[in-house]
Amino acid sequence: MTTTKTIAFVLYPGLTTLDFVGPLQVISGLQGLGLGFEAVTVAAARRPLPTDSPVSVTASHTFEQVPAPYGLIVPGGGAPTFAALADEQLTGYVRQAAQDAEVVGSVCTGSLILGAAGLLEGREAVTHWAAMPMLRAFGATPVSRRWVADGRVLTAAGVAAGIDMALHLVTELVGEDAARTIQAAIEYDPQPPLGPIDWDRVDRAFMESVIRSAAEKGLADHPELLARLATADGARSVSP
Amino acid sequence: MTTTKTIAFVLYPGLTTLDFVGPLQVISGLQGLGLGFEAVTVAAARRPLPTDSPVSVTASHTFEQVPAPYGLIVPGGGAPTFAALADEQLTGYVRQAAQDAEVVGSVCTGSLILGAAGLLEGREAVTHWAAMPMLRAFGATPVSRRWVADGRVLTAAGVAAGIDMALHLVTELVGEDAARTIQAAIEYDPQPPLGPIDWDRVDRAFMESVIRSAAEKGLADHPELLARLATADGARSVSP
Repeated sequence: MTTTKTIAFVLYPGLTTLDFVGPLQVISGLQGLGLGFEAVTVAAARRPLPTDSPVSVTASHTFEQVPAPYGLIVPGGGAPTFAALADEQLTGYVRQAAQDAEVVGSVCTGSLILGAAGLLEGREAVTHWAAMPMLRAFGATPVSRRWVADGRVLTAAGVAAGIDMALHLVTELVGEDAARTIQAAIEYDPQPPLGPIDWDRVDRAFMESVIRSAAEKGLADHPELLARLATADGARSVSP
Repeated sequence: MTTTKTIAFVLYPGLTTLDFVGPLQVISGLQGLGLGFEAVTVAAARRPLPTDSPVSVTASHTFEQVPAPYGLIVPGGGAPTFAALADEQLTGYVRQAAQDAEVVGSVCTGSLILGAAGLLEGREAVTHWAAMPMLRAFGATPVSRRWVADGRVLTAAGVAAGIDMALHLVTELVGEDAARTIQAAIEYDPQPPLGPIDWDRVDRAFMESVIRSAAEKGLADHPELLARLATADGARSVSP
């Protein structure tokens, strides 16, 4: 008898919707191929959670129902994600669920949640480009790539990078054919109308100040953690 | 006094999650720039709706609350989207809301819903690559592009194409600077691990049979509409 391998996406209030929906769509496609994988979403409770967008989302399972998934993927966001760093129920679940997981993943600032759960110590990782130095607060080495695999820990860059990371994960788990099938099914043949990001035209200071404000807002009641992040961030030495 | 321009994403049970979340994330970003636009999601009722993925979504507004949006975007999906073609409450809302809208958009098989609402007659349009011929059932001319603009009607190809279409829409509505800012914020700098879709390796017959089965399932109680789609589909003469 084969056991279905569950990949759990961790939901919490205020997260960035595309952070989890991008890779969830890919892993749902993997489930559809009947190769022994299933996708679930997990949250503290099965009730509608606000997101950063005008839509609420309800997880398919509670944390209690999925204590030991095969894989775990933690999405990110703005101020609510920083608040989540101090949410012991959430970080406790992530830490416990990661314990025996074969894959521990994140998208965007979700890697900071992995960090807060103690899972990035001594590892290379990536996060949203404007938050990169903050990874140091958790003992991680920021590496500017679309996704970074360090052992079983797989972190993706900001928001949309989760789609690329998930297709990579499918390739690793079951091979290129499945990844190509899913890519065609979701017609992921990107044609950004203005081309790839032109980093020379990006107002980095603006976006970095947005992230800094989000940290201050989310961690207003947790000055020690905020100070750790701010110190790491102040030592900015990583350019995407 | 300026009036906020509302862009409404139409939700219904069983839709493909990434179809609406991709462009919703982009238009939410536009809202965040404070340029007079806002994003909302609308549904028949504000209760959790199942999607094609293991997550339920709750709209921010009801159809009644948003009778005349500035823009309307209709996502697609599999069998539930075909069922939606015969849902008169849904197509009635789409028809009415589109009446004075400046932008009438769709993602993936959402264009078939625009067609069922009578909005594609005589227009060029696109849909998921495996469903292209079905557009003819609604008097539309299928055109294989990432997105197709014909007057105020803006249709996107399958699933992930909605992100590209939404960035194009932002460029049209407020200019390239805003689109670049949003693209950087959501780090949409795609790097599909296996490259763009290699169409020569895509099993077209398989995916086309999936779409055909979805139509048969979704429209089991509406043989006339199914026959119209099947006839159009049977005349396959469009290659993506």
